[in-house]
Amino acid sequence: MKVVTFGEIMLRLQPEGYKRFVQADRYEAAYGGGEANVAVSLANFGLDTEYVTKLPKNEIGQGAVNSLRKYGVGTEFIARGGERTGIYFIEKGASQRASKVIYDRAGSAIAAASPEDFDFKKIFEGADWFHFTGITPAISSAAAGITLETVKIAKAKGLTVSCDLNYRKKLWSKEEAGKTMTALMPYVDLLIGNEEDFSDVFGIKADASDIKAGELSKEGYMSVAKKVKDKFGVKEVAITLRGSISASDNKWRAMLYDGQFYFSKEYSVHIVDRVGGGDSFAAGLIYSELNGFDKQKTIEFATGASCLKHSIEGDFNLVTAEEVSSLIGGDGSGRVQR
Amino acid sequence: MKVVTFGEIMLRLQPEGYKRFVQADRYEAAYGGGEANVAVSLANFGLDTEYVTKLPKNEIGQGAVNSLRKYGVGTEFIARGGERTGIYFIEKGASQRASKVIYDRAGSAIAAASPEDFDFKKIFEGADWFHFTGITPAISSAAAGITLETVKIAKAKGLTVSCDLNYRKKLWSKEEAGKTMTALMPYVDLLIGNEEDFSDVFGIKADASDIKAGELSKEGYMSVAKKVKDKFGVKEVAITLRGSISASDNKWRAMLYDGQFYFSKEYSVHIVDRVGGGDSFAAGLIYSELNGFDKQKTIEFATGASCLKHSIEGDFNLVTAEEVSSLIGGDGSGRVQR
Amino acid sequence: MKVVTFGEIMLRLQPEGYKRFVQADRYEAAYGGGEANVAVSLANFGLDTEYVTKLPKNEIGQGAVNSLRKYGVGTEFIARGGERTGIYFIEKGASQRASKVIYDRAGSAIAAASPEDFDFKKIFEGADWFHFTGITPAISSAAAGITLETVKIAKAKGLTVSCDLNYRKKLWSKEEAGKTMTALMPYVDLLIGNEEDFSDVFGIKADASDIKAGELSKEGYMSVAKKVKDKFGVKEVAITLRGSISASDNKWRAMLYDGQFYFSKEYSVHIVDRVGGGDSFAAGLIYSELNGFDKQKTIEFATGASCLKHSIEGDFNLVTAEEVSSLIGGDGSGRVQR
Amino acid sequence: MKVVTFGEIMLRLQPEGYKRFVQADRYEAAYGGGEANVAVSLANFGLDTEYVTKLPKNEIGQGAVNSLRKYGVGTEFIARGGERTGIYFIEKGASQRASKVIYDRAGSAIAAASPEDFDFKKIFEGADWFHFTGITPAISSAAAGITLETVKIAKAKGLTVSCDLNYRKKLWSKEEAGKTMTALMPYVDLLIGNEEDFSDVFGIKADASDIKAGELSKEGYMSVAKKVKDKFGVKEVAITLRGSISASDNKWRAMLYDGQFYFSKEYSVHIVDRVGGGDSFAAGLIYSELNGFDKQKTIEFATGASCLKHSIEGDFNLVTAEEVSSLIGGDGSGRVQR
Amino acid sequence: MKVVTFGEIMLRLQPEGYKRFVQADRYEAAYGGGEANVAVSLANFGLDTEYVTKLPKNEIGQGAVNSLRKYGVGTEFIARGGERTGIYFIEKGASQRASKVIYDRAGSAIAAASPEDFDFKKIFEGADWFHFTGITPAISSAAAGITLETVKIAKAKGLTVSCDLNYRKKLWSKEEAGKTMTALMPYVDLLIGNEEDFSDVFGIKADASDIKAGELSKEGYMSVAKKVKDKFGVKEVAITLRGSISASDNKWRAMLYDGQFYFSKEYSVHIVDRVGGGDSFAAGLIYSELNGFDKQKTIEFATGASCLKHSIEGDFNLVTAEEVSSLIGGDGSGRVQR
Amino acid sequence: MKVVTFGEIMLRLQPEGYKRFVQADRYEAAYGGGEANVAVSLANFGLDTEYVTKLPKNEIGQGAVNSLRKYGVGTEFIARGGERTGIYFIEKGASQRASKVIYDRAGSAIAAASPEDFDFKKIFEGADWFHFTGITPAISSAAAGITLETVKIAKAKGLTVSCDLNYRKKLWSKEEAGKTMTALMPYVDLLIGNEEDFSDVFGIKADASDIKAGELSKEGYMSVAKKVKDKFGVKEVAITLRGSISASDNKWRAMLYDGQFYFSKEYSVHIVDRVGGGDSFAAGLIYSELNGFDKQKTIEFATGASCLKHSIEGDFNLVTAEEVSSLIGGDGSGRVQR
Repeated sequence: MKVVTFGEIMLRLQPEGYKRFVQADRYEAAYGGGEANVAVSLANFGLDTEYVTKLPKNEIGQGAVNSLRKYGVGTEFIARGGERTGIYFIEKGASQRASKVIYDRAGSAIAAASPEDFDFKKIFEGADWFHFTGITPAISSAAAGITLETVKIAKAKGLTVSCDLNYRKKLWSKEEAGKTMTALMPYVDLLIGNEEDFSDVFGIKADASDIKAGELSKEGYMSVAKKVKDKFGVKEVAITLRGSISASDNKWRAMLYDGQFYFSKEYSVHIVDRVGGGDSFAAGLIYSELNGFDKQKTIEFATGASCLKHSIEGDFNLVTAEEVSSLIGGDGSGRVQR
Repeated sequence: MKVVTFGEIMLRLQPEGYKRFVQADRYEAAYGGGEANVAVSLANFGLDTEYVTKLPKNEIGQGAVNSLRKYGVGTEFIARGGERTGIYFIEKGASQRASKVIYDRAGSAIAAASPEDFDFKKIFEGADWFHFTGITPAISSAAAGITLETVKIAKAKGLTVSCDLNYRKKLWSKEEAGKTMTALMPYVDLLIGNEEDFSDVFGIKADASDIKAGELSKEGYMSVAKKVKDKFGVKEVAITLRGSISASDNKWRAMLYDGQFYFSKEYSVHIVDRVGGGDSFAAGLIYSELNGFDKQKTIEFATGASCLKHSIEGDFNLVTAEEVSSLIGGDGSGRVQR
Repeated sequence: MKVVTFGEIMLRLQPEGYKRFVQADRYEAAYGGGEANVAVSLANFGLDTEYVTKLPKNEIGQGAVNSLRKYGVGTEFIARGGERTGIYFIEKGASQRASKVIYDRAGSAIAAASPEDFDFKKIFEGADWFHFTGITPAISSAAAGITLETVKIAKAKGLTVSCDLNYRKKLWSKEEAGKTMTALMPYVDLLIGNEEDFSDVFGIKADASDIKAGELSKEGYMSVAKKVKDKFGVKEVAITLRGSISASDNKWRAMLYDGQFYFSKEYSVHIVDRVGGGDSFAAGLIYSELNGFDKQKTIEFATGASCLKHSIEGDFNLVTAEEVSSLIGGDGSGRVQR
Repeated sequence: MKVVTFGEIMLRLQPEGYKRFVQADRYEAAYGGGEANVAVSLANFGLDTEYVTKLPKNEIGQGAVNSLRKYGVGTEFIARGGERTGIYFIEKGASQRASKVIYDRAGSAIAAASPEDFDFKKIFEGADWFHFTGITPAISSAAAGITLETVKIAKAKGLTVSCDLNYRKKLWSKEEAGKTMTALMPYVDLLIGNEEDFSDVFGIKADASDIKAGELSKEGYMSVAKKVKDKFGVKEVAITLRGSISASDNKWRAMLYDGQFYFSKEYSVHIVDRVGGGDSFAAGLIYSELNGFDKQKTIEFATGASCLKHSIEGDFNLVTAEEVSSLIGGDGSGRVQR
Repeated sequence: MKVVTFGEIMLRLQPEGYKRFVQADRYEAAYGGGEANVAVSLANFGLDTEYVTKLPKNEIGQGAVNSLRKYGVGTEFIARGGERTGIYFIEKGASQRASKVIYDRAGSAIAAASPEDFDFKKIFEGADWFHFTGITPAISSAAAGITLETVKIAKAKGLTVSCDLNYRKKLWSKEEAGKTMTALMPYVDLLIGNEEDFSDVFGIKADASDIKAGELSKEGYMSVAKKVKDKFGVKEVAITLRGSISASDNKWRAMLYDGQFYFSKEYSVHIVDRVGGGDSFAAGLIYSELNGFDKQKTIEFATGASCLKHSIEGDFNLVTAEEVSSLIGGDGSGRVQR
Repeated sequence: MKVVTFGEIMLRLQPEGYKRFVQADRYEAAYGGGEANVAVSLANFGLDTEYVTKLPKNEIGQGAVNSLRKYGVGTEFIARGGERTGIYFIEKGASQRASKVIYDRAGSAIAAASPEDFDFKKIFEGADWFHFTGITPAISSAAAGITLETVKIAKAKGLTVSCDLNYRKKLWSKEEAGKTMTALMPYVDLLIGNEEDFSDVFGIKADASDIKAGELSKEGYMSVAKKVKDKFGVKEVAITLRGSISASDNKWRAMLYDGQFYFSKEYSVHIVDRVGGGDSFAAGLIYSELNGFDKQKTIEFATGASCLKHSIEGDFNLVTAEEVSSLIGGDGSGRVQR
């Protein structure tokens, strides 16, 4: 089974340990980006993947390609050209101090790409699933146009299409997001978001009665999912429910809705790196669905995969399907494996 | 507004991560010291600052100057000369293993400084506030003498004077501390200490009835503050209340007394580095008072600043006033800022 | 007082921080192994120790010798020769992701050693105690043979003999372990194990009524200890009781049985490195017994030593007896020592 | 004496040691840029300096400010705003493999700055010297316009103006460079370039007879300097003469022409980092002239300063005037100073 | 065009910088091995490659696969299974102190592989060239058997076969090597060796008159090449000529003989890492021949590629064909590329 | 055979790579000191050694002890107590920039030691050789007194005594040095110095005719050695002859005089770390003499040992006697050992 994802991969620069940006005399360098993170996670689960983007023909762009090849992601259809590779700086938070991201992605090769850079008819040959996030159409209007064309082709070719809303307020306004994402919805089978995305992008909120002491109740999430499914006719809606105690400790669970509601167990996670948490959840869903897991196992697998991601440095979820299965099978005690 | 601080800045050497001294083949090198930490924190809040000390005319002393200039602290009045820069070694604790400090500061340039090294009349021109800690007079009798002269000049010039007791048993006895600090009190407006300093330095303790199961009650702190204010006639007394669960986790809150009592909210902090916690509290107080915050906001700002310090590597509190305001405004959940 | 230990010391390779193996471009290198860990811990407590093993005559083997000499362990009787030094790779877990160990120890010098490599009659001169673990006879049948000869000599020479069961399923089957370890029991005075070792090696389990909700009750441990003592006639049985909340947080306490039961206090440990936790416990027992501590203090000292080990990087427990005494005396709050 | 410089400072990212970009999982982070490098070098020599540029109001921009403050460079007039800080990636070469620079500076704050960002009349108050390089006008046409206005103000205020041609083919064409730089020449007193700049920017070449076996003779440089002075009427022309044996070893000397020719001694340098070599030369010239050194000492000081720069990591020349004087006084044997 | 190589890839562990093994508390980790190095170099030149070996199904083996995928080498036919990944430790020499290699490769998966692990008929489909080295048959007699079968299949399928003698005295005796390699020669088209391999493996030496002052003359190499070609009937013989001045500086050139003699220019290389020098030479030859370069350009390209390798950390030659072409086109001065 | 050395061991702190002090945010930490360096080198050659000093009872002092034990040096007679461990900071030079040492050793435990700290009669039991350097008596007058007593005891007990003059101008004046060292000479058998020590300490210079173009001729060294032997009646005089081309490259050879002159071959060394070069030479002499090498082999061994030291990081010469023998036997080409 083969999954195609499309988006932007950036150079990720992070001060060592808990150092702040102004203390950094050294940056840990890696690559990451929503859709690339999904592709790597799926490759680690053993699926065939193709990641599509555009990257400059220099060593910084090559580094991005290599970071994907290293984990077995297909890079055959990455267009090469353009001026620069997007960059994001990230400072790891702790306790009451939040992690901080500074984007430096304007003018990247993918933002300036044109439809001719990608032959999606060819790219989708033999593929079963297409995944994208709300970041891709947000990068530039050109990227938004390509994304729309792409989902149409995907649909026409019979692929399942999943979309993670991933609203980024620094990239576009709620209005732009709402308009663009709404136009994409007819082609989406599985729609994924966190607790704020549906409100930010579509203005879909839980009823007032579902909010208690400033926190959304389980019923609130259920009501949002139902409204989303009803409005756009997507087959499934998945929502992650993060309980942010501090930058060091989170609660983490999720919900899947296909007409019925499925809730995962809740994890208390001690955070190593929470970037890519949502992407690892999306990958878990895709893997589960392609393997025909039942819905309860699907949401458990996706949530468990994402739980493990929080313990791993970098954007990529470097765990195997066996490791996820072992966790959701009950082994979360962290005993040494030897 | 301009704040002057006076004291000793040392080279700080720390094994990497959680390594013990005997495992160290590499030391993280930084600079720090109570009064310098206050100056850097205030400079990060946007105030003009001058830090006064004496440092040798070699590269180790120059490194200390540079570490202050980097964050915008004024270094114009640092005397240069003397034999050595004080050093302190610090090993980071975890769980039940406490952090450990080894001082190697005897014979430092500031300990051997003479009054001629500093022209405080000139230094205080245009200044609004003078801050020192109980460490400075403890360094040497010469330093104690300079400190006494300095607070007199500060007072005569109309500056507000704050003092953090900071009792260090390795530097002097309780008797010496009590005698010397008592002589300084007439010139102090704001007196700061932690739960043990007032007892160690002045023998001022809570009433027996305030201690329950070995722990001081809220009422106990109130009684200490009242006794201190009554005895020395200082305008304000501020006390930090650390609840040390382990080397990894602390409770942290504080109290301000100016005739009335103001208590901050309490934070549960997961510790990255707690050295400089008290200094960041003092800086928060000074900033708040110079900005005319009301007393409740003052103690919240100071405690919030100090809470964030616990998440930052090194002695210096590298946070902005905006970050502190955001925390005390309610955002302590540590969600990624992007 | 002098303690002799005998076993395998390996090169330990660990990715930096929380990196997974597939992310490692650098390994922290140290040495460790059950019996060597006990020897180092005892040397840090101030006892004379001799560690006996076989290591190749190359720099990797020399590094192992040096790592022991550094902490004052006697290395005079280490045989030199053979093909390779055993290696183990360890990846540090966090939260729900467990630490992972990959052994690469086949064909090591000690596994291929012969009885002629060691003159235990001479080695035991002036010694009071001999310690080994169940790993040593598991390495190879040659090593098992040497171990049996060694305990016989130790007994004949009047040494106290302690054994930590340390069952490793990757080294041998339960059947092999049971047969070999049973043959060694007549020479053992103090038998140590964790909650699973007695069942894995000897098939000795708690009564069904002692297991509630999948967890062994205090009474269960007591019943196991009693059965073990009754069956093998060892003087004392010590059992560690780990409560694994996650790879980051554990509960830790232990029990000693000599006809009566002694339970230590329980610690909540935030884990830096838990490898060597059991070895540090064994060292704490040996030290306590050689110093004539009463049984309650013995189990407290051993458990406290082991608690501190969890906060230290590497296999070796780099704490002094004073630090352990301070902890069990009540100072576990982790306040900075300065 | 006070020197003002104006230009772009970038974040400099370098793989560790001799690693290539595609091997980099970590970047050494520093800041640098032609005019900033000159300012830092002059500050290290003890002169007052002001560095003028525009930087974003985020932590990456703040890091640039801090890197200058650290060495005592004045940053009061740095405008804050704009989208991004320019970046350059550098891979250190060795032997036959050249160092490689990848610029990622498009869209930086200074490139998009406007004249209103800088009040040069105020900035030049009390200043004696203004220095810029050919990189500044190459950044953008806006920057070129500001540069022209700036040199006019500098001239009107009686400052000495120096310019280092620093032709960068990736920033503009030879034609653009020639036209823009020619317009700036009337305001320049001291013109600096390497062996190719005069040909690239102005088309001024040595006579054919001065080239032997592909290498320019001493006479060739003399003829170029004379032509430049004759054409533009600058007071002085300085040319660096690099003999590039390999990326590891260079020959280095320079020439000054003010109507007469002054040649420095030649150094064989074993390269640690040659970026900023030309900037350190310019700083050496400015320092010498402001101190009234005779011309021969001037060229020796500048060349010696630059020689030492090649032994220092990063863009900045972190040497004192005393160290340069010691070298040109004859002590280049590298004996340990203790 | 597609090239297949077959051999052993090992985990390479190196102390940082110039540290000796006994100083190492950290190892730089990479992967390398003669035939893998050739594959990576060819992939960097843009050729299709398949690398064939056997690796364990654990993370250490996976790391080897990933290191190859990262650079685009085909890993589809790598068998997975067996006990361990071979390791080699390397300490970098300097000046008069030689680099030192400690092999720990006994019992590796590839040494214990069986013919069934590899379906070379399928692997060779679409391939043009097969390369192996004398290390592969030296690993074990099983590996030697597989190698012989493999070259037969390669020949039958019409591939060009190249062999680098790479005699390793720690793996087998000269007698064993001579016998095994002689049996392989009928299938070899291009035979590569350094100045000692031909003598060690085949006993083919230059005439006494060709040795002057202990050093082989150019004529000596010519005579060896001629004897080798005459004896085995290989089409071409290539010999590298290293002049080892010290561990830091070498002379490097090479010769190709196909009936006529072609000598490359000689390079003076300042060494960053010379491991893999011969492999990069072999890759240069293969690339040149597959691209139809004339023989003089072939030997220049191979020698230039190898020259650049000496400036790169690790086993792999991370240079492009363009970089090699630029060097052999005359640009070896190491000027910064910007 | 057993050698005793006596002196000061310091914590050595060095910025990483070629970074200057003002760039250091991290220090490589090691220990070193003239006499300790000799002891470690001899232990590496396989001799029994005892190193005598005084160190504080804290972890910094313990680190020094551990650094010696690691390499097998006897530490039984190290006195524990006093205030601090001496420190020296070292910045590695390159090319024309010299390495720089900043001493911070005032007030160290050994400087303040008293005769009662050491029982040299017991320490010298079973010893054959005593070595000290001119640094020890320079530390303090107390240390000078102990040194004089010590050599008297050594002589009385029949040990051979060697002394390395090691004049340090920052520790004492030439007059003090001359007076103190002259008083020690009657007890010295082997006197070692570099080209300047004899002039600095004793005022013994070569004749004017021996100096040509500012450099001492071979005859000059011979004349100095002769004068020294004649004046003090020492049995042997050894002089090292360093030719300092730059901080990166040196020439290195040495001379031994016992009535006849013996010159070593000369080495061109590419420097990794030249600190401890003289100490490694002294150790080579002592080892050679204790092994009864003839005088020519003695000077070759000592010079070869010292040549290798220049390629090793840190103060200690971590080479075996076999490695030295191999070098002086002719293998200095630096070929990879595998």
